[in-house]
Amino acid sequence: MGVGECMPIAPGPGQVQIAVSHCGICGTDLHIFQGHMDHRVKTPAVLGHEMSGTIAAVGAGVEGWAAGDRVTVMPLDPCSSYLPREGTGGEPCPACKAGHSHICQKLRFIGIDVPGALQGIWTVPAHTLHRLPDNLPLEHAALVEPIAVACHDVRLGEVKQGDYAVVIGAGPIGTLVALVARHAGANVLVTEVNPFRIRLARELGLNVVDAREVDVVALVNEQTGTAGADVVFEVSGSAAGADLMTKLPRTRGRVVIVAIFAQPPAVNLFQFFWRELKLCGARVYEHQDFDEAIDLAASGVIPIPRIISGVYGLDGVQGALEQMLKGGEVMKILIDCKS
Amino acid sequence: MGVGECMPIAPGPGQVQIAVSHCGICGTDLHIFQGHMDHRVKTPAVLGHEMSGTIAAVGAGVEGWAAGDRVTVMPLDPCSSYLPREGTGGEPCPACKAGHSHICQKLRFIGIDVPGALQGIWTVPAHTLHRLPDNLPLEHAALVEPIAVACHDVRLGEVKQGDYAVVIGAGPIGTLVALVARHAGANVLVTEVNPFRIRLARELGLNVVDAREVDVVALVNEQTGTAGADVVFEVSGSAAGADLMTKLPRTRGRVVIVAIFAQPPAVNLFQFFWRELKLCGARVYEHQDFDEAIDLAASGVIPIPRIISGVYGLDGVQGALEQMLKGGEVMKILIDCKS
Repeated sequence: MGVGECMPIAPGPGQVQIAVSHCGICGTDLHIFQGHMDHRVKTPAVLGHEMSGTIAAVGAGVEGWAAGDRVTVMPLDPCSSYLPREGTGGEPCPACKAGHSHICQKLRFIGIDVPGALQGIWTVPAHTLHRLPDNLPLEHAALVEPIAVACHDVRLGEVKQGDYAVVIGAGPIGTLVALVARHAGANVLVTEVNPFRIRLARELGLNVVDAREVDVVALVNEQTGTAGADVVFEVSGSAAGADLMTKLPRTRGRVVIVAIFAQPPAVNLFQFFWRELKLCGARVYEHQDFDEAIDLAASGVIPIPRIISGVYGLDGVQGALEQMLKGGEVMKILIDCKS
Repeated sequence: MGVGECMPIAPGPGQVQIAVSHCGICGTDLHIFQGHMDHRVKTPAVLGHEMSGTIAAVGAGVEGWAAGDRVTVMPLDPCSSYLPREGTGGEPCPACKAGHSHICQKLRFIGIDVPGALQGIWTVPAHTLHRLPDNLPLEHAALVEPIAVACHDVRLGEVKQGDYAVVIGAGPIGTLVALVARHAGANVLVTEVNPFRIRLARELGLNVVDAREVDVVALVNEQTGTAGADVVFEVSGSAAGADLMTKLPRTRGRVVIVAIFAQPPAVNLFQFFWRELKLCGARVYEHQDFDEAIDLAASGVIPIPRIISGVYGLDGVQGALEQMLKGGEVMKILIDCKS
């Protein structure tokens, strides 16, 4: 090894080192790239949290994992995990104590708060690992993380067989939510405004309408015999979506907030009162969502190749981010970290 | 009976006639009085839906009720009740079919959509009746209806023993929600800005702070060890309340929308995402809430005399409405309909 080359740091106790195969680029990465998260992210930063790879080395005390294992990472490190590891002896936060460690009040999101997967060799706590089945290609497995988001959203939305579900916004997450909800037995309507995304969702067999051209409220009322939708997923993060989401549900119907709203929009709280609507926020995932996402990816329920817009090398990250910024004809871009 | 006097219409099949004893005046009556509900209410209208009385006559086919029975009325007439009675043969609405008849999509609210209790003799469908225990004075029983609202709110808020609950707004309903939540075992904090209401809530033994003088978020964090509140009731209907309500709950904590928001306020949907908060609207009541409210009123759990600000005759309705409009030192005003 010559001067100026980096030697990977050996994995510490409870850690594993992963040879990263593929890493997806997420809307959050784009926000960081644009500087919107400078209050949280210290630069220079290594991004990336949607990944697949193979274990390269295992640290002391790690059981059940060995070099060569094909894995993905649930990139959450809650204080209930890192406080004991770091021996600080502090108390876990109330969220961890309540069993909500995935939204720990001091969560370290791996790839945002600590270095991410957009590198050849990546070191993570072993508790984040999920094993990949042999029949799931590593390129496809980089989508397990966003699929797990969708599984979490659909689970918190309590989607049942026969439900009428509306998904507002068909970006990567909205499209995955629609596919997972359909697999759960729902009759799914998707609303979108971007022509490329409408076309792609249609090609995936989804029932999609352009929210600017179709009276979505009238359509849902007609299709549900004036009852309204059982569940609405707000995945657009737009003021128009926040307005539409309260007009669609049936009495005691559910709204799931998936999108990240940068500004508090106007929300028709009267409609919540009038129809006794329910709303819940859904953030990231829990281990059971990763398990389900791996099953859905491996079984082909999610047509992953149709969602991948392009695969570039590590030197293509900047270009990929710029392509996503431009919007238009792009869904999920992967980085091949082996190249 | 002389010319110009009215003879009460005999009760029809399935109806009862009640000699009204007392009737409370509600914020909704005030809205109607001010003309805010002219789109819904045809004038001249007989208002009143918080009442007590004694059955005067029973129509054909009414079983289990007799003249002299002391009763209150749950003033909801859903289409699943009135369509069969009127023999129109129509299908009940989807809300009724789903078991949500209290928020029927074609609900007739008795005292708003059809004539109310501010009269000596009142005719209502028998399905609305609830029997009053002998130890509950009729004057007090006029408060069963607003107490039932509070029971419904606390039930939908899933308040459990040991919960930390915040009630934003201590008008009549907010005060009752706080008292019912306390009875359910919650540790209750009330926020209010009206000095009279703060004083009254304190006299009722509630823990009250002036939201303009106290940092409520810091207080709740301190009192819950940074966890946040289990449940927050928004009963103020104000933009400030809609702002505060998202800052208080713990991870996966609950917000109950009790107030009627005339305008959609800005709501921090990011906070719902970030802490996976839940929100539900709660409107009116179901029969089980009336049963519970009668128990709470009769057992003295709700200190009803402290909540009654005044009792006037039927000729005092206008004055009572004007007193409520002025705000200030008024909680619940009753009308003695026998006078």
